[in-house]
Formats: sequence, C-alpha cells, structure tokens
Amino acid sequence: MDLQNELVKRTTMFNTYWQQYLQLKKPAMLYEASQHLPFAGGKRIRPFLTMVSCESVSGDSQKALPFAAALELMHNFTLVHDDIMDHSQLRRNLPTVHVKFGEPAAILAGDLLFAKSFEAILHTSVDFQTFIQLQKDFTNCVIDICEGQQLDIEFEQRKTITVQEYLDMISKKTGALFELSGKGGGLIGGGNPQEISALKTYGMALGLAFQIWDDYLDMSSTATTLGKDIGNDIRNGKKTLIAVHCLFHATGKQKKLLDDIFGNRRASEQDVMTVYDIFREVGSVEYAQQRALHYTKQAKDAITILKQSDAKELLYQLIDYTIQREK
Amino acid sequence: MDLQNELVKRTTMFNTYWQQYLQLKKPAMLYEASQHLPFAGGKRIRPFLTMVSCESVSGDSQKALPFAAALELMHNFTLVHDDIMDHSQLRRNLPTVHVKFGEPAAILAGDLLFAKSFEAILHTSVDFQTFIQLQKDFTNCVIDICEGQQLDIEFEQRKTITVQEYLDMISKKTGALFELSGKGGGLIGGGNPQEISALKTYGMALGLAFQIWDDYLDMSSTATTLGKDIGNDIRNGKKTLIAVHCLFHATGKQKKLLDDIFGNRRASEQDVMTVYDIFREVGSVEYAQQRALHYTKQAKDAITILKQSDAKELLYQLIDYTIQREK
Repeated sequence: MDLQNELVKRTTMFNTYWQQYLQLKKPAMLYEASQHLPFAGGKRIRPFLTMVSCESVSGDSQKALPFAAALELMHNFTLVHDDIMDHSQLRRNLPTVHVKFGEPAAILAGDLLFAKSFEAILHTSVDFQTFIQLQKDFTNCVIDICEGQQLDIEFEQRKTITVQEYLDMISKKTGALFELSGKGGGLIGGGNPQEISALKTYGMALGLAFQIWDDYLDMSSTATTLGKDIGNDIRNGKKTLIAVHCLFHATGKQKKLLDDIFGNRRASEQDVMTVYDIFREVGSVEYAQQRALHYTKQAKDAITILKQSDAKELLYQLIDYTIQREK
Repeated sequence: MDLQNELVKRTTMFNTYWQQYLQLKKPAMLYEASQHLPFAGGKRIRPFLTMVSCESVSGDSQKALPFAAALELMHNFTLVHDDIMDHSQLRRNLPTVHVKFGEPAAILAGDLLFAKSFEAILHTSVDFQTFIQLQKDFTNCVIDICEGQQLDIEFEQRKTITVQEYLDMISKKTGALFELSGKGGGLIGGGNPQEISALKTYGMALGLAFQIWDDYLDMSSTATTLGKDIGNDIRNGKKTLIAVHCLFHATGKQKKLLDDIFGNRRASEQDVMTVYDIFREVGSVEYAQQRALHYTKQAKDAITILKQSDAKELLYQLIDYTIQREK
C-alpha cells in the first residue's frame, strides 16, 4: 500500500461525496462564504482517518463518508470562526472568509457549516444506538474544540503556562477531532469495543503528534531558512509547545532575555535569533520533538491489537507521514 | 384556562429543566458567556408553544422539554451571534454577550449553545424515525435562520425591497423557529399528520404575526410617547414591514422626503415626525396592522381541526396575547 496513492484515492472519493453539503443556494453571498474554505483545498486527513479506521475493522468506507463529511464540515466551521477571533488574514494561501466576505457573513457561514454537519450525520446508515453514540460523541467533540479555543485565547494573555495545561488545550482543540475521526470510523465499521477503543487512542495520539510536529518543524529549520513567520511567532508571543516549555524552564539570563523579547512586537532580527537559540539551549526544541515521537509511539502501540489488513498498514504509514511532512 | 398563569407554570418547569445544559464548567469565561443571555430572562414563548402543542395532541409536555430546550438554546445562540453582527449593545436590558465578554468569547459562546442544542435533542424520548425527523427539521430551521439573517443584513444595504421579499425574510428569520416549535411539539406528542400540519401552520403564522406586531407597536404609539428608539430606527433606516411598504408605495413629494430623511443619521426630531406622518399617510402602519391580523386569523383557522382541549384554548389565547402585548 502506498499512502500517497491511497490518500489521493480516498480524498477524491470524499471530495465528490461532500459537495452535496456545499451546494450554492440563495442568498448567494452566504453560500459562497461557506464554500470558500472547504473548496480551498486541504489534505482531508480527518476524513481519510475516518474512512481507513472503518476499513480497519472490515467496514465499507463508503458507509463512513457521511460522518467523515460531518467531521470535515465541523472542522471547517471551527476554522472560519477561529480566523475571525485570531484576526487571521490568510489560510490555505487565500484570504480568510471574514477578510473576503466580511465578518457577519463569516460568522453565518461558520454557523451554516455547523448546521450542515448535523445534516451529514443524519445520512449515516447505522442502527439507532450507534447513531445516538455518534451524535453524542460529535457534540462533545465540538464542545471540546470550543473549550480548547477559549483556553488558547486565554493562554495568549498569560505569561507562563505549564506543559500539562498546553497539552490539555491541544487535546481539546486538535486531539478531540482526530480521536473522533478514528473512533467514529470504528463505530460505523462495526468494530468491537477493543477495536473502537484502540482507534480512539490512536486518533488522539496522532492528533497530538500532528500538532506538536507542526511547532517542531517551524523551529527546526536552519537559521538561513528561518522565515518571517517564525520571527512573527516570536514577536507575537505565540504559545507553541516549544515556547511554553522554554518559558517555564528558562532561568537567569535566558529567562530575562525571553521576558524582554518574546511577545515584543518591535524585536529585531537579532533578538529573534537570540530567542531561537534559547529555545535550543534550554532543550525545548528537542523536548517537543521527543514529545511528538512519544505520541507516535503511543499511536502505533494502540493499534497493534487490530487484525492485519491493508487499512492497518495505512494507519501505520499515516503516523510516519505525520512526523515527516514538511507541512 | 388563564394564559398568564399557564405561561408562568410552564416557564418555571422549563427553566428548571434546561439548566442542565447551562452548567458552569471550565474555562469559566466561556461558560459564563454562554449563560449570560439564557439567564437574562425572556418570555420562553417558543418552549411554551412546543409544550402546549404537544399537549394539544394529548401528549405529555414533560416529554417535549428536551426539544423545547434545544429550540431555546438554538434561539439564544442565534441572538448572541446576531448581536455581534448588528453591533447591538443591549438585549433584555443587559449588555450583549460580546460587549460584556468580548467578541471571541461571544462567538464561542454561541457555538457552544448551538452544540448544546444537539445534546438536548438527544434526550428526546421518541422512536428512531421521529428522532430523525426532528433533527432534520431542526437543522433546516437553523439553516433558514442563517439565510434570514443574511437577507436581513443585505436588505439594510438596499434602497427598496418588496413586501414579499420582506415577508420571505422574516419567515426564515423568525417564522421558521415558531413553525418548528409547533410542529415539534405535535410530533413528540404523537399527533396525526393533520394535527402536525395544523400546528406547523399555526406556528409559522403566529411567528409572522408576532414579528409584524412588534413593528406595528413601535409605530402606533402616539407622538408624545414616541421615544428615542423610533427616531433611531428611522435615522438608521431600519427595514421594518412598515418602512418597506412605505418605501415601495410612496410617490412624489412623500417619496422625496423619505429618500432624504429615512436612513439619514443627522435627521432632526421634526424630520423624524415627518417620516412618521408619511408612514401613516401612505397607509403603511395600517397595512402592517392588517397583515398581522391576517396572520392571527390564519393561525386560528389552522387549529380548528384540533380536538377540543385546554391546550387548544391556550393556543387560541396565545394568538390574542401576541397582538395585545405591549412588548
């Protein structure tokens, strides 16, 4: 099995399927605003995970498409609203929805995508009990994501947060959706409780590794490729795992330099490089790398109990992909 | 049956029930923001309608509480987001959620209330088929409300809109939720298709009457009680049914005066009075009154097929209440 081929195959199937939830209607501006981000591309890793999880318990991944669509619609809804809150200008190399359509249409487009996600859940062909479980999990997942985003906003205002607080936050903001992508696929595929539990653990661990590896990639670039974004992250005081770890563990002169530079919008190029060096010296970059690898191991261990299949092989490959991709 | 007594009785029952969806958790700011509007009072007319509709087909209104909670949670979610879009400062005599908690927390609080509404639907004890129907109707209702709000925003930018366009807009923005309050109660109560259809028609007509009567009340005050708000509505060019009708039908000198004053933020007291007079002279105030009465008649006619009961009596009284209340 070649992961890239299989990813493309399922992404194509998924993109064809979920268009039914993104049809253009009137008022046109609302529907164009709600199409903007979904049609701007994206790797569809969450739908892929749902489909392959379903296959891994001998289910038909076609059956998982509606729930995969629900998850991806919900993911897009949260991104549209997050971008408003974070005043983000660009996503997937396009203007964000509120920049292009204005804030009112962006709020409504997010709400519409959220509503459509429940329309998609309704199309899942499962028994009543499984349906109730899926919807309960889905609702809790959205609540987790709202809580995670609120924590993320609050963390930006705080000087230091603990690594555990950070991990709890990304468990909610990013992990919960990966967790449900795995678990939901397992439920729809008719997996037994052990298999479903394994896919759930796998999903959460994969989500955490995915998020932390992003931070690590940003900071592990060599000084010469260190671009404007990283300087901006340091100037904006963005609380990545690396920054959180470093702010908590730095002492003496390093602590003082961090206090002066990190989050200082007028920091010079040289200042930014200084912080970058401190991140390495304190061991925070390596810590993040190790933490990501820890979660990939957790993900691998979780699915050993699944019976051998092409899908299981893809789940293994997805872990390696997560910590290899250059974004 | 005394409507006020019965309204208080059911509102008390409802308020006790739906608190389970509004528990304080962490992060506290998110949950406090989501509690703010629900706990600020409100007449709970929609939950009342759901409960009484359920009773009118011999159902137990206890059984309708979860769905009534879902509708009221969703109603509150849309108000929180609408207030952001409309830059509203006050609602129910309190600062709006975004004014008190900031815009990011308000967006998230709305999203959380929306998610909670689906949690509430899950608690409805009905068979799978009815459950699917309720959720389908609920999702379509949210979509209607989003479309209605988008149209409302767009109408503010347009010089004239037709009465039909206005009625279509409030059918979505206000009518759809009343419609589902009636229909949902009938479905949960086990009504037959004719009864459910009657309650659906009743709900929509009541909702339209409710909305239009609001506009009419504002404008039917005598000149001496004509407060700041109406002046502001005229200065802001607020598209009520009265304004829409008048802008469409005024000609000659009246049309010119309207063009000059309506939506002019620097309009004097005298200017405002002039527009107020034109609204009456063109017959727009009376038109709105007649239109509201037309819908109350439609609502009354719709439920004649229901068998006689205390609940049916309350539904009749609710219509009269709608066009008598002084807000």
